[in-house]
Amino acid sequence: MLGSTHGTLTTDSRRARAIACGETPQQIVHGRPAEAGDLDVSGRPLYAAVPDLDRFFRPESVAVVGASDAEGRPNTGITRQLLAWAERVGARLHPVHPTRPSVFGIPCSPSVADLPEPVDLAVLLVSDPLPLIDELAEAKVKFAVAFASGFAETGEEGALAQQRLAATVARSEGLRLLGPNTNLNAFERFRDDLDGPAIALITQSGHQGRPVFSLQELGIRLSHWAPTGNEADLETADFISYFAERPEVGAIACYIEGLKDGRSFLLAADRAARRGVPVVAVKVGRTEAGARTAATHTGKLTGADAVVDAAMRQYGVIRVDGLDELQDTATLLARARRPRAEAASRPVADGVVVYSISGGTGAHFADLATEAGLRLPTLSEAKQAELHQWIPDYLNVANPVDNGGHPVGDWRGPRILDAILDDPAVGVLICPITGPFPPMSDKLAQDLVDAAERTDKLVCVVWGSPVGTEDAYRETLLGSSKVATFRTFANCITAVRAHLDHARFTTAYRSPFDEAPRSPSPSFRKARALMRPGQQLSEHAAKQLLRAYGIRVPREQLVTSAAAAVRAASLVGYPVVMKASGARIAHKTELGLVKIGLTSASQIRDAYRELTDIARYEDVSLDGVLVCQMVERGVEMVVGVTHDDLFGPTVTVGLGGVLVEVLRDAAVRVPPFGEDQARAMLDELRGRALLDGVRGAPPADVDALVEVVLRVQRMALELGDEIAELDINPLMVLPRGQGAVALDALAVCR
Amino acid sequence: MLGSTHGTLTTDSRRARAIACGETPQQIVHGRPAEAGDLDVSGRPLYAAVPDLDRFFRPESVAVVGASDAEGRPNTGITRQLLAWAERVGARLHPVHPTRPSVFGIPCSPSVADLPEPVDLAVLLVSDPLPLIDELAEAKVKFAVAFASGFAETGEEGALAQQRLAATVARSEGLRLLGPNTNLNAFERFRDDLDGPAIALITQSGHQGRPVFSLQELGIRLSHWAPTGNEADLETADFISYFAERPEVGAIACYIEGLKDGRSFLLAADRAARRGVPVVAVKVGRTEAGARTAATHTGKLTGADAVVDAAMRQYGVIRVDGLDELQDTATLLARARRPRAEAASRPVADGVVVYSISGGTGAHFADLATEAGLRLPTLSEAKQAELHQWIPDYLNVANPVDNGGHPVGDWRGPRILDAILDDPAVGVLICPITGPFPPMSDKLAQDLVDAAERTDKLVCVVWGSPVGTEDAYRETLLGSSKVATFRTFANCITAVRAHLDHARFTTAYRSPFDEAPRSPSPSFRKARALMRPGQQLSEHAAKQLLRAYGIRVPREQLVTSAAAAVRAASLVGYPVVMKASGARIAHKTELGLVKIGLTSASQIRDAYRELTDIARYEDVSLDGVLVCQMVERGVEMVVGVTHDDLFGPTVTVGLGGVLVEVLRDAAVRVPPFGEDQARAMLDELRGRALLDGVRGAPPADVDALVEVVLRVQRMALELGDEIAELDINPLMVLPRGQGAVALDALAVCR
Repeated sequence: MLGSTHGTLTTDSRRARAIACGETPQQIVHGRPAEAGDLDVSGRPLYAAVPDLDRFFRPESVAVVGASDAEGRPNTGITRQLLAWAERVGARLHPVHPTRPSVFGIPCSPSVADLPEPVDLAVLLVSDPLPLIDELAEAKVKFAVAFASGFAETGEEGALAQQRLAATVARSEGLRLLGPNTNLNAFERFRDDLDGPAIALITQSGHQGRPVFSLQELGIRLSHWAPTGNEADLETADFISYFAERPEVGAIACYIEGLKDGRSFLLAADRAARRGVPVVAVKVGRTEAGARTAATHTGKLTGADAVVDAAMRQYGVIRVDGLDELQDTATLLARARRPRAEAASRPVADGVVVYSISGGTGAHFADLATEAGLRLPTLSEAKQAELHQWIPDYLNVANPVDNGGHPVGDWRGPRILDAILDDPAVGVLICPITGPFPPMSDKLAQDLVDAAERTDKLVCVVWGSPVGTEDAYRETLLGSSKVATFRTFANCITAVRAHLDHARFTTAYRSPFDEAPRSPSPSFRKARALMRPGQQLSEHAAKQLLRAYGIRVPREQLVTSAAAAVRAASLVGYPVVMKASGARIAHKTELGLVKIGLTSASQIRDAYRELTDIARYEDVSLDGVLVCQMVERGVEMVVGVTHDDLFGPTVTVGLGGVLVEVLRDAAVRVPPFGEDQARAMLDELRGRALLDGVRGAPPADVDALVEVVLRVQRMALELGDEIAELDINPLMVLPRGQGAVALDALAVCR
Repeated sequence: MLGSTHGTLTTDSRRARAIACGETPQQIVHGRPAEAGDLDVSGRPLYAAVPDLDRFFRPESVAVVGASDAEGRPNTGITRQLLAWAERVGARLHPVHPTRPSVFGIPCSPSVADLPEPVDLAVLLVSDPLPLIDELAEAKVKFAVAFASGFAETGEEGALAQQRLAATVARSEGLRLLGPNTNLNAFERFRDDLDGPAIALITQSGHQGRPVFSLQELGIRLSHWAPTGNEADLETADFISYFAERPEVGAIACYIEGLKDGRSFLLAADRAARRGVPVVAVKVGRTEAGARTAATHTGKLTGADAVVDAAMRQYGVIRVDGLDELQDTATLLARARRPRAEAASRPVADGVVVYSISGGTGAHFADLATEAGLRLPTLSEAKQAELHQWIPDYLNVANPVDNGGHPVGDWRGPRILDAILDDPAVGVLICPITGPFPPMSDKLAQDLVDAAERTDKLVCVVWGSPVGTEDAYRETLLGSSKVATFRTFANCITAVRAHLDHARFTTAYRSPFDEAPRSPSPSFRKARALMRPGQQLSEHAAKQLLRAYGIRVPREQLVTSAAAAVRAASLVGYPVVMKASGARIAHKTELGLVKIGLTSASQIRDAYRELTDIARYEDVSLDGVLVCQMVERGVEMVVGVTHDDLFGPTVTVGLGGVLVEVLRDAAVRVPPFGEDQARAMLDELRGRALLDGVRGAPPADVDALVEVVLRVQRMALELGDEIAELDINPLMVLPRGQGAVALDALAVCR
């Protein structure tokens, strides 16, 4: 990774396991909503409490430890800003300083213990907050904010100091800490004159959050700003959970340098998904080490950033790359947010209509929108006839709707807009206004603002002029709390697509945490007995592991003599495959350690000799030779488990074979996930069509493949902290109805 | 296509062939710069003259036909604007009207013939310009502009009218016409107070050009605007050629709805490439019918838009999608333009340094820039030490350079900038200023502007605030003609990448038109004798075609009896492949019409019987059975020729086999192109690594593959208008040094 300036300490998700593995494995409890204390079978929490941050954002009383009014001290400026803020939000402010009698005329307390009243929030302007923590906890302070820097962001020593700070806070009763290495952002001035659902902002870097916060100057409502800094205690996930419950929040915008804990983040995103609150996030790290050191094939297929990407998608988090996309997407999603009951009863229509005064502009926008996956339905004949009452016949009104310019100038303009928005197939109207021409564009802008007031559908405008000082833009469009106004086609398309995708996602969403297994399956004990800590299992042992989880493997026998091989072949049934088996063999095919299509005892004896010769020559240690059933041809896939530092075990599925080794066509998911996600993984594969049968091949048994993915997930959950990597390569997916067979497997124990 | 509002009539590039094919094919003339009248072997021009448009853009005298000063007439407004423009540019304006004695006090001529002096330009404000054309030509008018609409943009009838207009203009001596369906854009007010190389703008739609033109309001110099409208005569290509020769033009920005002629466009782009003038273009039509009706495999692999994409890339035209990208990329390229001699003597360093007052911002920008393919070199130890004189030690100055904020405030700021720009590894400095903080960002902006004056390297700023009314942005940054200022990370990265790519492209550029074959190769006559107009050739005939062009095919014989097949097998050599052969057979493998690995006379007799049985059963007409040499395994590719309506024959190369049928991994080029482009095609393939050998496979004979692509190009050029489609599938590329063999071929004659 190219460097994070905020020293989030990511906890290795290998946690203390908390599984009581009794003699009789318990029945799996499915479908019960998770509660506090619930753990899944991997020992990870299924539930996260929502911290009550009301008194953090709106405290009644605040202590400022290290307050100053001495000219030229940095703390003086901060104290002054805090005073102004306290006055604004009606909080009582108490300066704390060991020697000053008063600060800005307010009497000082010499220490936290001496405060005149219990405070909700203590702002710590001291270089080392650690010694204060116990005192704050003692004084029943609910929240502390530590501005000090010099912690994990500076290196190893700072990281240790931060660990000590985090541990002290964790020990303290009831105290929650924001920071260290944070700032005043939470206490900025929020405009209270703006309407509509607001954006709540979470950033690790104050500097990177500024442009989103500045949206207020464009008339976009912001409700909160949580500058999480180094996240020694309170983290991004806490704020997501809290904001998801706030009625005024329409969308949550996040700028994330590093996630502190994968599971906390997913639980918070799950909460937002359940409540239908969109989370839009920049997560730095696109170029994070993509190539991990991994022994297995699937382990190399997806890098850490791909796992973050997948995890976000699983919970409907909208990942964007630029701060401008973050702004524009969060703005649109906040404005598009409808009351939950209404959203549930009437789904969002996903039809987009492009409306323009120029056919060229409409065609260009429609071209890009269609390419980006938006659906531009052709308007019905009746609707087109209706529009042609006001728009000349020679203009195209099928969608994009080209009004030719003139109807904008008079009473026809609003009628056209209402007629389009009234169409049940239409969910979104987008009007690109490419160049300002005040006699026309001023009226058009006003008509759009007015029409947006008369509908609950989404009205978007792209103000194409690069100048941006025009009245129609600054006053009319930005003055509306209903219209979402963009400056580029691309950002408008990205945001509208995010909105429609999120609406679809929310409608279909079922939390995987409710369905997650809480106790081990009967397979678990059998599988566990096969584990060899720190070692790579032989193919044969790895296949026994699969078999324990009900994954089909070929009939096979491990033999150690040519005579036994011949006996095994008649049990397995001709023709057979023979493979060298050993704990450390990779690339068997390349080494010539696989012989296929053997049909006679003499071929088997020859093959046995050849395999053992090659093994000796290549200095490969064998535990024997596998004599395996030949399996009919199908579609070769790979399915595997890889350990991710942030999220723990992950499941990957990809197309097998040499070509896909080159193309890295694979999809990854973070458990727990349901069958829907297992199927979605397959749809992400570029070579998906191979499973449906190409060039006369029969369709593959996709159901069996999905079942294998889910069984592998179960292994990942139950053995995830004991298996470093697992790789089925290839999994031969036979024609529909015939199942899937793991032809080869590799497992590395932790 | 989603609709163009400008009715460019695309000429089918199947032109009257002009090849005199004598008894003794002439030697091919390579390497001579093309001249007027030169045609390539396909009959397409190798040279396009640059129209002298000086008198169009800066006429000394102008006639306005249909001028008016009657209140309320649209022509009155236009006349008024033309008067103001004529005054501005110092042109004499002569109104022409059959009945009015004067317009705005200027005496009217009743007709063009009666004008008081020969005029350079006639603006035609009449609904039908056709009857005027002869009169204009007679009067030696150099240029006419037709505003009238109702031509090809309205449908078939209009298209016919446009054809008549175009034909009349083409007949006239010396007259060039802009339009119809154009407007006043060429005669707008261009600011003359701005410095630096300018953007010249070409748009088919006036509305879509407006935002680029408005860049003047942000201090960016525009030199011309050509609103080409329906392009009955003058087309985008003419203006590209003209602008490429103008010294004040730094970059050409185009908005193209439809190209009138593929070859004209390429010749114009070639001229710009030779002169090192960047062309940035939006070409509408991303969603243009991708799936063409094609009998061959390669024909289906690439759609019309992919051909446009490739053609642009071949000539260094930078294709972008949004008008904002067009603005930002053209601006940067104009500002980055250096005198040709200087550019040739000292190549642009491609190292990018990101400089920021916040580590978070730098890391985020660097993450996105690296992902987009920019190279961020780590600064040398010495340079880092130099920077650490002014930047605290604990901050990262390796690149991104994080100054921590404070050094910006004093004398250190300019030193740091100069030190970075002085590094020979650095070609571009990018400074993202995410949030405005006037005490810091005002000074930083000024320092950047000053530093840009002291260097010839590129200085870019991203002004991240969405507000955009800040002084540092409006006054300081936009006031500089050296700094390129962006509003988003993404557009900055796109533009910088375009600049560096273009610099590399220009340095390496050799015009393919200089090397294009002008007369047929000895293969041509042999090949032509095999053509069967309107028919699909049999596999055997198609392979003879390949053989005529020196492409290797397996030893094979066409037989019509089992006995002949056995004799053929011993000539060809065992083992053999047998295939049904006939003019209309596709999907031979799926139908069971291919038998491989036959090793004995009896197998051959059986195979013969089976193939003919299946053919009878499937009602497939055979011209016999092919007995072919078995070819060793290699990498399967497809190579083909497809006819594109705009550009004529195109050459496609892709990976073969079932997987790539699914993944459509192919690259296309428009002839003529050189070996460099043939190799570049291979590099575009996602599965490129297969050619280098994976999983122990030997590297494939890439040189032989490139040779086949070039020979197929030669066929495309010589037979392009007689072959509708040609498909080698598979071309088996053997291990390095062993060549490539066309195992199957399909050819459809026009």
